[in-house]
Amino acid sequence: MAKPAKHKKKRQHIELPHAGASPGTIFIDSKALNPIIKLYRYNAESYEVKELKDISNLKVLLQDKTHTFWVEIKGFSSLALFETLSRDFNVNKLTLEDITRTYQRPKQEEYDHYVFAVSRMLQLDENQNLENQQYSFLLTDNALFTFQENYEDCLDPVRSRLKIGKGNIRLGGSSYLMYALMDIIIDTYFEILGAWGDELDNIEDRLFDKPDKTVMFDTQLIKRNLINIRRVAWPERDKLNDILRSDSHLITDQTKMYIRDAYDHCIQIIDIVESLKEISASNIDMYLSIISNRMNEIMKVLTIISSIFIPLTFIAGIYGMNFANVDPVTGKLLPQNMPELYQANGYLYTMVIMALIAVLQIIYFWRKGWFK
Amino acid sequence: MAKPAKHKKKRQHIELPHAGASPGTIFIDSKALNPIIKLYRYNAESYEVKELKDISNLKVLLQDKTHTFWVEIKGFSSLALFETLSRDFNVNKLTLEDITRTYQRPKQEEYDHYVFAVSRMLQLDENQNLENQQYSFLLTDNALFTFQENYEDCLDPVRSRLKIGKGNIRLGGSSYLMYALMDIIIDTYFEILGAWGDELDNIEDRLFDKPDKTVMFDTQLIKRNLINIRRVAWPERDKLNDILRSDSHLITDQTKMYIRDAYDHCIQIIDIVESLKEISASNIDMYLSIISNRMNEIMKVLTIISSIFIPLTFIAGIYGMNFANVDPVTGKLLPQNMPELYQANGYLYTMVIMALIAVLQIIYFWRKGWFK
Amino acid sequence: MAKPAKHKKKRQHIELPHAGASPGTIFIDSKALNPIIKLYRYNAESYEVKELKDISNLKVLLQDKTHTFWVEIKGFSSLALFETLSRDFNVNKLTLEDITRTYQRPKQEEYDHYVFAVSRMLQLDENQNLENQQYSFLLTDNALFTFQENYEDCLDPVRSRLKIGKGNIRLGGSSYLMYALMDIIIDTYFEILGAWGDELDNIEDRLFDKPDKTVMFDTQLIKRNLINIRRVAWPERDKLNDILRSDSHLITDQTKMYIRDAYDHCIQIIDIVESLKEISASNIDMYLSIISNRMNEIMKVLTIISSIFIPLTFIAGIYGMNFANVDPVTGKLLPQNMPELYQANGYLYTMVIMALIAVLQIIYFWRKGWFK
Amino acid sequence: MAKPAKHKKKRQHIELPHAGASPGTIFIDSKALNPIIKLYRYNAESYEVKELKDISNLKVLLQDKTHTFWVEIKGFSSLALFETLSRDFNVNKLTLEDITRTYQRPKQEEYDHYVFAVSRMLQLDENQNLENQQYSFLLTDNALFTFQENYEDCLDPVRSRLKIGKGNIRLGGSSYLMYALMDIIIDTYFEILGAWGDELDNIEDRLFDKPDKTVMFDTQLIKRNLINIRRVAWPERDKLNDILRSDSHLITDQTKMYIRDAYDHCIQIIDIVESLKEISASNIDMYLSIISNRMNEIMKVLTIISSIFIPLTFIAGIYGMNFANVDPVTGKLLPQNMPELYQANGYLYTMVIMALIAVLQIIYFWRKGWFK
Amino acid sequence: MAKPAKHKKKRQHIELPHAGASPGTIFIDSKALNPIIKLYRYNAESYEVKELKDISNLKVLLQDKTHTFWVEIKGFSSLALFETLSRDFNVNKLTLEDITRTYQRPKQEEYDHYVFAVSRMLQLDENQNLENQQYSFLLTDNALFTFQENYEDCLDPVRSRLKIGKGNIRLGGSSYLMYALMDIIIDTYFEILGAWGDELDNIEDRLFDKPDKTVMFDTQLIKRNLINIRRVAWPERDKLNDILRSDSHLITDQTKMYIRDAYDHCIQIIDIVESLKEISASNIDMYLSIISNRMNEIMKVLTIISSIFIPLTFIAGIYGMNFANVDPVTGKLLPQNMPELYQANGYLYTMVIMALIAVLQIIYFWRKGWFK
Repeated sequence: MAKPAKHKKKRQHIELPHAGASPGTIFIDSKALNPIIKLYRYNAESYEVKELKDISNLKVLLQDKTHTFWVEIKGFSSLALFETLSRDFNVNKLTLEDITRTYQRPKQEEYDHYVFAVSRMLQLDENQNLENQQYSFLLTDNALFTFQENYEDCLDPVRSRLKIGKGNIRLGGSSYLMYALMDIIIDTYFEILGAWGDELDNIEDRLFDKPDKTVMFDTQLIKRNLINIRRVAWPERDKLNDILRSDSHLITDQTKMYIRDAYDHCIQIIDIVESLKEISASNIDMYLSIISNRMNEIMKVLTIISSIFIPLTFIAGIYGMNFANVDPVTGKLLPQNMPELYQANGYLYTMVIMALIAVLQIIYFWRKGWFK
Repeated sequence: MAKPAKHKKKRQHIELPHAGASPGTIFIDSKALNPIIKLYRYNAESYEVKELKDISNLKVLLQDKTHTFWVEIKGFSSLALFETLSRDFNVNKLTLEDITRTYQRPKQEEYDHYVFAVSRMLQLDENQNLENQQYSFLLTDNALFTFQENYEDCLDPVRSRLKIGKGNIRLGGSSYLMYALMDIIIDTYFEILGAWGDELDNIEDRLFDKPDKTVMFDTQLIKRNLINIRRVAWPERDKLNDILRSDSHLITDQTKMYIRDAYDHCIQIIDIVESLKEISASNIDMYLSIISNRMNEIMKVLTIISSIFIPLTFIAGIYGMNFANVDPVTGKLLPQNMPELYQANGYLYTMVIMALIAVLQIIYFWRKGWFK
Repeated sequence: MAKPAKHKKKRQHIELPHAGASPGTIFIDSKALNPIIKLYRYNAESYEVKELKDISNLKVLLQDKTHTFWVEIKGFSSLALFETLSRDFNVNKLTLEDITRTYQRPKQEEYDHYVFAVSRMLQLDENQNLENQQYSFLLTDNALFTFQENYEDCLDPVRSRLKIGKGNIRLGGSSYLMYALMDIIIDTYFEILGAWGDELDNIEDRLFDKPDKTVMFDTQLIKRNLINIRRVAWPERDKLNDILRSDSHLITDQTKMYIRDAYDHCIQIIDIVESLKEISASNIDMYLSIISNRMNEIMKVLTIISSIFIPLTFIAGIYGMNFANVDPVTGKLLPQNMPELYQANGYLYTMVIMALIAVLQIIYFWRKGWFK
Repeated sequence: MAKPAKHKKKRQHIELPHAGASPGTIFIDSKALNPIIKLYRYNAESYEVKELKDISNLKVLLQDKTHTFWVEIKGFSSLALFETLSRDFNVNKLTLEDITRTYQRPKQEEYDHYVFAVSRMLQLDENQNLENQQYSFLLTDNALFTFQENYEDCLDPVRSRLKIGKGNIRLGGSSYLMYALMDIIIDTYFEILGAWGDELDNIEDRLFDKPDKTVMFDTQLIKRNLINIRRVAWPERDKLNDILRSDSHLITDQTKMYIRDAYDHCIQIIDIVESLKEISASNIDMYLSIISNRMNEIMKVLTIISSIFIPLTFIAGIYGMNFANVDPVTGKLLPQNMPELYQANGYLYTMVIMALIAVLQIIYFWRKGWFK
Repeated sequence: MAKPAKHKKKRQHIELPHAGASPGTIFIDSKALNPIIKLYRYNAESYEVKELKDISNLKVLLQDKTHTFWVEIKGFSSLALFETLSRDFNVNKLTLEDITRTYQRPKQEEYDHYVFAVSRMLQLDENQNLENQQYSFLLTDNALFTFQENYEDCLDPVRSRLKIGKGNIRLGGSSYLMYALMDIIIDTYFEILGAWGDELDNIEDRLFDKPDKTVMFDTQLIKRNLINIRRVAWPERDKLNDILRSDSHLITDQTKMYIRDAYDHCIQIIDIVESLKEISASNIDMYLSIISNRMNEIMKVLTIISSIFIPLTFIAGIYGMNFANVDPVTGKLLPQNMPELYQANGYLYTMVIMALIAVLQIIYFWRKGWFK
């Protein structure tokens, strides 16, 4: 039985720190991408985007308090970039380490002049593997810095809402922008869960139609993915709750009202994850019971056929024995040896007895309910 | 074995938001029904119902503070309706989004001038599938707005109590009406659970009488439904608790006393759900143990019959061998070849030995307790 | 295999409210018993009991503050009785509904002038079925009303202590009487749990001596009963805790000291229930492992016998073939056809080879440990 | 298969109160031992022990505030003793009931002039059964009363430390003595858990070497004992925590510092219990998987042998058929009946074909990995 | 089947105290190593290390408040050392007992003039066994004492950072040094978990490729190690939280900021442990389902072959019977005995019938899906 190709999944290694580095060390991976830096500058009336080569003069640009700024940084290969952040914007070294070591759980941390937050951006790649990317936020009074390791993301809807100025997004300031990004990241979780919910439905159909062992493998795969998403959703919930209860002046009351909405979504996600986990477990239980049932059926076939024919074969064996009724050497008669063989209807009687035994056994099995 | 038709259940898709929409967007489904709007106007003495075409002049009507109003809205196809609510009654956009995106969990949210609450109305359809409809409440000082997506509901008893003016319902104001509706929605949960409890009892009877694999399927189906109802009951409990602890002036102390009663009911529902889940689990355990037992029985039959007849067949096979005691070509005597065959009582002795072997085995199996 | 009669248990239907009734409706079941009303009037010195026909002049009697009164009401068929309670003693309608709808969980509710509490009286009937009856308390300053649906109860020890005036019971006032009744109800739980503990011990003995499938059924029955008792014990604990923390002047400090003792008992009950549940689970695990072991043994017997005799039978079959060494028609010699048959010791050699094969297999199985 | 003797365990009946006794009744069991009363009188300089016949003049003795007293009472047959306690030392009736009803959970209760506490003394008897004895403490300002039902205990190390005056014990007052006794009782739990840990290691070795069904029984026995010790350890922890948070002047700050140490020990015990429970569960899982594996192996042997020889036996059976190529009566030739039998190499060809079939099957099973 | 050598694991005995010792007794194991004492003396500018023979004049050295000191003590054989600590540095006896009894859980305790803390240093030895060593901290204003039982540790990265003066380490004072050591100890947990994660991935690969029973053993081994690491990680988390909330002036605010980072790491560890546990459980579930499936396959082979050939063998057996159509003695014709044998095409017809039966059965099994 060939293993389905899709189980050759890309391993999702849990990336881990290496012991011994000094705390607060900025970590530049050798495979890090070159940074692409975009600066969005907008207020209710105006909107412009430009790509920056570096952030050396960003401090000056951001002194314009009539606009809100989104500094979007993709790719971490430039150590200078982080050093500029540290120098010009007084960002704590531990924060920079957390941005560059991309295995952080969702969390929110308040500092005197900025708020640092982490979301996990989940996406299904073309092979339905779950990709789990860190998305970091650095919120100041009129700017939001965001950091992501790769170039792809799921944030285009926010960018286009920003561009066309629909809804609150141009009015809400930097904290509303942070909310909008967090919210869309959470919303993609729903899409992923929806896909898995459908997959579980398909698996359940297969359970009824033709259960084979891929049912088990596929369900376990989804279950493991659900474990991964739950590892993200619970701390995400805590993070949103921390933001709701935050005293920081950087997060406006209006934003908090929206964060409460995102918090509700996050609760729903946890709720759906738990439900899907229970459905997975129930699928596995049913699969195992189907296996047991099938074993029972197989054994019943074997037992019925063996039980009927083994005794009959024995009887045939008896009358296949060569006990002689005449000694071939001396010619002495041995009349007690298998006289049945020399009766006119011996064969007939034997066949009738065999048929009787078979019928009795069939009745016995019938009444035990083995034919149902 | 044909699958019972009832497993062809209607899928209960968990409806999910789509990522990227601006928060606070009113969502009008393409399949939404045309709104039916009824206005109930009552106080202790008077009661009247009329159907409205739209709610454009509702603001004026509701300025009559001598009556309580129930604005019952069924069907969401009219965007204008929600815009009127937003304009005339200053309803928050997020609230309107929650009303129209009907996958909210039960919750209660307080705003300055209204209270928003969500209940989930559960009903069994004709195929015993669980339907899960959102029922939203918008409570103001002298009016209650309710919203439901479909036309059917389980609220007729409240409507008739309102009509005949029995009990507290005409005196308690808008918050009591909200309570009465929430209460009847919760009470239907009891009916559903009662039906499933009976079903589980039936399944248990089948376990004792003729356990087959539908036991497993049916129990799993109920278990999954119990998961669904639990997903509703826990947040419902939290919602009622939030209302109990609410500071809002819109909810009277008398209503809170009744809400405490509904809260007790909700605790009971959770309690029953957990009990039924344990009963389901216990049914499944028993089913699996029955399967194992049955396998044991099948194997015992096979083993007893095989063990008895296989050695006997072997003996018969021995004496069916054709070792010659006279070489047919040379006529040389070969007296050592199967001399038993040429003894006067060889056949008899063989049969006695076979019988003995069979009896010994039967005794052996008997003492092992395999015939019990 | 006949099902043991005791599994024909009386179903313990979870009684459920019907949706739609107005909250606060007194519910008189059509099968309700006629009320028997007893009035106990006592203080440190005096004690008298009389049966009342109705409670119409009870209000007057209870104005005697030198005595404590116990108004014991059994049977709910009289609507008038409850209306009198409502009118004369100002009892809330919701309280009366809770008294008459006898599926309440244990709880305590404080009102201005009385305390309402519910206990669940558990008793084993003659068939060892668990009966679960509601016992309601209505505590005023100098009187305790109690309500029970049926005539039987387990409270005689309290009545006799009251009569002979032993201990605190005549001095402690109405709240102590309520405690004494609650305490004895809890104490009967111990007796029931003791009976089930013994039953589980018996089942465990059967597990070692002759495990059959009734082990599973009986353990599951106890497990289900434990679920029921736990559903009662947890809210009972909460109720007692609520009374301990109550501010009501109706419950004296001395009574609270005793309630603390009852609370300890309740904790012990929960503790025992959890232990018995774990013992049940462990019994079921052991049963399933015994089943598996037995299957292994059965299969070993089958495999040993089949493996030994099937090859031997094959050999016997070989020499039972009729390949001719002389063509019966032409008389041509066919010396290559089964020459073994015409050797002087062919039979002997064959038997030796068969014995060898059997011995080798037995050694093989022995070394695999299958004979242990 | 004989049951191992050690499973004939002494039942550890959970002792239970009998419903109906008046609360606060001193309970003297008919099998209670005669009390042995020892009075330890000590301070930093002096130490003396004497055995008392009764405690009638204890009140006078204890007025000497320059010494600390330990009144050690073993055996409960004297009602007079408890009545003296009640009269001379004003001990609450509920306390005396708790001392004499020896199924209390560990707890601490503060009264105006004394502190009452209960520990559970666990010991393994010679058959490795767990004995669970109640040890009660009654702490006053300069005296500690202790109560135990039987004469044996595990407290000798404390007595000898008291005698030789090592460490804090003579200086710490009555509350330190209570701590020292509680601490040694907890320390014996470690010894018991250590013994069980070793036993579980042995069981695990047997799992690898020769797993038989005693593995299951022995593991379940330990698991059940672990449940018992957990039932003691959790309330013990709560008790120590209550003492730590106690406001009673009877417990000195220095004692509390030591109690914190005992609390740490108790946490460790709970921790070890949970670990051992998980190890037990893991042993059981492995045992079940070993059983399954063994079943697989047994079935493989059966299937390989049956599958190889059954078809061969069939072929042999074919050529054992007696279809005649000459009608024995008429002498008519029937050349189509089994011509193979009369071919010069028929036997040889048949044997070759049989060998071929066998080899093909062996290759098939080999490639399926059944010989590994 | 040989057991893999790696299961001959070194037992990780849970070391336990022996009952009866006086609390606060310093415990010197007979196998304790000779102490190696190193004194690190450093500030921002200077750094020096020297090895001390004893700590008798340490009190004087530490009065230099311009430097921070790290007193690193490895090996506990010297009682004098601990007595000096007690006398010169006024360390509580309970603290010294905790240092020398090396089975403490991670914890933090504040005293007037020092903070005592315990970490557990985990390391994998060359056989991949988990070693669990206690590392104790004693923090004063300008010095950190650390205690470890063995000479090996994982702290070299901190020593070299201290030497080269990189990062905060020379500036942060004694509390920062304590943090740095705690942090590196926690970071090694990540490495261990990473190794186990990889091992679980390998096991999963084996599950798909060639599942055998080592899968079960290896997974259980990892699961047990995960239980051990969890027993360390949870109290570690609590310890870090206690330090975060500590009021002690000995722990600076800057250190607390770093401790928050370590706390995050600890949460991540717990998170990973739980995920790996779930993956282990899922591997075991899949293994068991694979076992079941394989059993099904084995049984199918047996059943198909037996079911096809047993009936055919029976038919062959029939025509192997020796019913005579001529009485060999009298020569009487017995025409009813097996006339089929004397038909011209009897053999052919029989073979055709046999083939038919075989084909029908194959079709039957095919349609049942047994060949898939």
